Amino acid sequence: MDDRRAYCDGEDMTASQALPAVLDRVDRDLEPSLDRLFALLRIQSVSTDPAYAPHCREAAEHVAADLRSLGFATSVRPTPGHPVVIGKSGNGQAGGKAPRVLFYGHYDVQPVDPLELWQTPPFEPRIATLDGGRQIIVGRGACDDKGQAMTFIEACRAFKAVTGKLPLDITMLIEGEEECGSKHLFGFVRDNADELKRDLALVCDTGMWDAQTPSITTSLRGLVYEEVRLTCADRDLHSGLFGGAARNPIHVLADIISALHKADGSVAIPGFYEGVHELPDDIKADLAGLGLTPEKFLGPIGLKIPAGEQDRMLIEQISTRPTAEVNGIIGGYTGEGAKTVIPGKAMAKVSFRLVGAQDAEKIRSGFRDFVRARIPADCSVEFGNFGCNPAFEVAFDNPALQKARAALAEEWGNKAVTVGGGGSIPIVGDFKSVLGMDTLMVGFALDDDRVHSPNEKYDLKCFHKGIRSWARILAALAG
Amino acid sequence: MDDRRAYCDGEDMTASQALPAVLDRVDRDLEPSLDRLFALLRIQSVSTDPAYAPHCREAAEHVAADLRSLGFATSVRPTPGHPVVIGKSGNGQAGGKAPRVLFYGHYDVQPVDPLELWQTPPFEPRIATLDGGRQIIVGRGACDDKGQAMTFIEACRAFKAVTGKLPLDITMLIEGEEECGSKHLFGFVRDNADELKRDLALVCDTGMWDAQTPSITTSLRGLVYEEVRLTCADRDLHSGLFGGAARNPIHVLADIISALHKADGSVAIPGFYEGVHELPDDIKADLAGLGLTPEKFLGPIGLKIPAGEQDRMLIEQISTRPTAEVNGIIGGYTGEGAKTVIPGKAMAKVSFRLVGAQDAEKIRSGFRDFVRARIPADCSVEFGNFGCNPAFEVAFDNPALQKARAALAEEWGNKAVTVGGGGSIPIVGDFKSVLGMDTLMVGFALDDDRVHSPNEKYDLKCFHKGIRSWARILAALAG
Repeated sequence: MDDRRAYCDGEDMTASQALPAVLDRVDRDLEPSLDRLFALLRIQSVSTDPAYAPHCREAAEHVAADLRSLGFATSVRPTPGHPVVIGKSGNGQAGGKAPRVLFYGHYDVQPVDPLELWQTPPFEPRIATLDGGRQIIVGRGACDDKGQAMTFIEACRAFKAVTGKLPLDITMLIEGEEECGSKHLFGFVRDNADELKRDLALVCDTGMWDAQTPSITTSLRGLVYEEVRLTCADRDLHSGLFGGAARNPIHVLADIISALHKADGSVAIPGFYEGVHELPDDIKADLAGLGLTPEKFLGPIGLKIPAGEQDRMLIEQISTRPTAEVNGIIGGYTGEGAKTVIPGKAMAKVSFRLVGAQDAEKIRSGFRDFVRARIPADCSVEFGNFGCNPAFEVAFDNPALQKARAALAEEWGNKAVTVGGGGSIPIVGDFKSVLGMDTLMVGFALDDDRVHSPNEKYDLKCFHKGIRSWARILAALAG
Repeated sequence: MDDRRAYCDGEDMTASQALPAVLDRVDRDLEPSLDRLFALLRIQSVSTDPAYAPHCREAAEHVAADLRSLGFATSVRPTPGHPVVIGKSGNGQAGGKAPRVLFYGHYDVQPVDPLELWQTPPFEPRIATLDGGRQIIVGRGACDDKGQAMTFIEACRAFKAVTGKLPLDITMLIEGEEECGSKHLFGFVRDNADELKRDLALVCDTGMWDAQTPSITTSLRGLVYEEVRLTCADRDLHSGLFGGAARNPIHVLADIISALHKADGSVAIPGFYEGVHELPDDIKADLAGLGLTPEKFLGPIGLKIPAGEQDRMLIEQISTRPTAEVNGIIGGYTGEGAKTVIPGKAMAKVSFRLVGAQDAEKIRSGFRDFVRARIPADCSVEFGNFGCNPAFEVAFDNPALQKARAALAEEWGNKAVTVGGGGSIPIVGDFKSVLGMDTLMVGFALDDDRVHSPNEKYDLKCFHKGIRSWARILAALAG
């Protein structure tokens, strides 16, 4: 059946007008959609292991051919690592009513070790049924990111089938090194900024709040990562001879670390909260409504008491509030038994998660000043920097965000929550800083998807309704 | 010349009456004394290396034969390691006017590596002359402890030569494992408590205050050594996902360590200073008179500012005051670069130097209570104990101490200072706890003796006047 003919002059319909037929097409096309996903899942595109380079190329060519079949002008572009797939629909102009979008995904997957923990071979995807009837797609990449990326591609396919064209100007950027650090993507984006700069980026690599509640990730925390190397005496000392008179660098470091937080859990560095925005009341109410309790969040890791800012909800602590954490510390004797040493040196690694408009460079220099002010006059400190990236956030009143929220609510029958991602997705920061472009992060992963682990899965419902969700979002963005 | 005949009825003279002749004998006998020391220094009695076991036995036999020649009833006693030499003069009774003494020394020496840094072979002792005319004995063990022990033995020899007998009841205990931890001596002392328990122990293994100022070590700090193992979450966490909500054990440890000391440098554990005595005013004045400045003491290790109790002299901080030191700390990621981890566990090693009558067990339990009171309710702590020994001190009004001070002052023309040793000499603690016996620690080492290092030396003057000092002390003790 040819949907175009069924809906007659499809090309002249608006995307919104075409939506019911598109959703219908998605439903009817689910079996072939799964076949196409399975074909991609069978390709062993493990990016971190050089032995799998031919498989990565195969996956890139496979995706390129698929996009070409949807009318994208497609190329497989070399990098010093695995290739990047670029597809351009080309049916839009800057300044038009509808935004031109850049969709980002990745065709590479994590290694499969330990293989013996897989119930079936990782590259032989299958549908399984859980107790209670939940159907799941099992296989490496079922969720991350082949399954998620395919929700977007299948939504495009349904539009193409129904209306004969894509509903928006869409540029596809599908890379093959996300699972090993995207190390060549940043340069690729810089080198090809002109063709990649669009009005909005779309990413499908995040999760739902829960199986019933869709979610848009509207912010990602930034990161400042510092190493503090402290020197007191110019050698290790015997604590019998020098104990009581010689400065102990572990004590100095402990004093600094202890001073980093106030009793209320807030960070004590002067100016640290500059650029941290209060959430709008409605967003805060939404977050409160999610009812994320310490039992739910901390219970599984053996904890009970939220350790962050006392006057903040736990969900704020982990997503929309900045933090200071000591990620490592070492000094003196750490082997078995006793050694009565006063070390000459001690070291700590300290990182800050940033939010809103916190200035990463200011945080870094503020921290260094904070440390220097606490170093005794006869001791010295050196710093190393291992990361200095600002936070990313989409304004809550961004029209695309509002449209996507409405579209998701319509599909899932539940309000779509906007959440902050606690960690970083560095390329999203680059989209903002290099291409000047916001990113809408929508994804359908669930907490139990075992991403990066054996028996990775993606709920069939998430795949199906994920395609429908993107169809709705595309229609909404097309206006 | 036979000194006995020269002084006629020497056997009936008191030791004090004989002293001028004994000192004269020491002076005239210096060359043969040096020959005897050199013979001992040529024996390669490195105790820590099993390859040198025959040399250790040779040294033991050599010392035993020498003691036998002085009239000691001597035996070389086996241990699971190197043998112990026991010598008994047997000329005294418990409850007599003069104390029966136990002299402790050791015939073993440190390894000589790095050999290439020795200017001459370490077991070929020689006399060298420094700029300014100072004559020194160079060789492994020249000071520690062969040279020091021989000052006592040569003093005994001079008495024997002049008076025909030893001035006191003397038991000799010369071990061969001091440089590798005296690991079999503690058991030996316990097993032979009856024959080793005397009224007073004498040890010649400590130093002078400076080249002009003799010194008696009247106290040794005790030690409590604790390991603190803290667990928060039951696994390592990603700081992007959990940062802000999950308790960080490094922060908890840092808070505890930071709370260990008050702003004035004193230790904040409740009851910590119970049993810490104030020094008598005259002793304190003596210590002040020594003028130990931060420049002199801390300058050589690259520091300037004493870190201990603000209201105490530096010399008190390092010898007569208790301390709390973190000897080691580790947690989280300590390798190159960045890892955004919140560790589940962190560990610190914390030790306390004790003085006076501080109760080691109370300090330990007080510290554990201090830590437990600062552990969040959802975290846990485990402790390990690696040492719990009380301090050792001789009462300042101990008659033997007063006699030795006077004797040393007479020999050196300078008041003998009483100092506290910052570290521990565990066997001295055992003499007290197992044998119920105080120890008089007198030694003639100088700070520049390079003990344990290449080109170890002992000043010829220290050796010579050391012998004379012991002669005076023995005479004084004999009363």
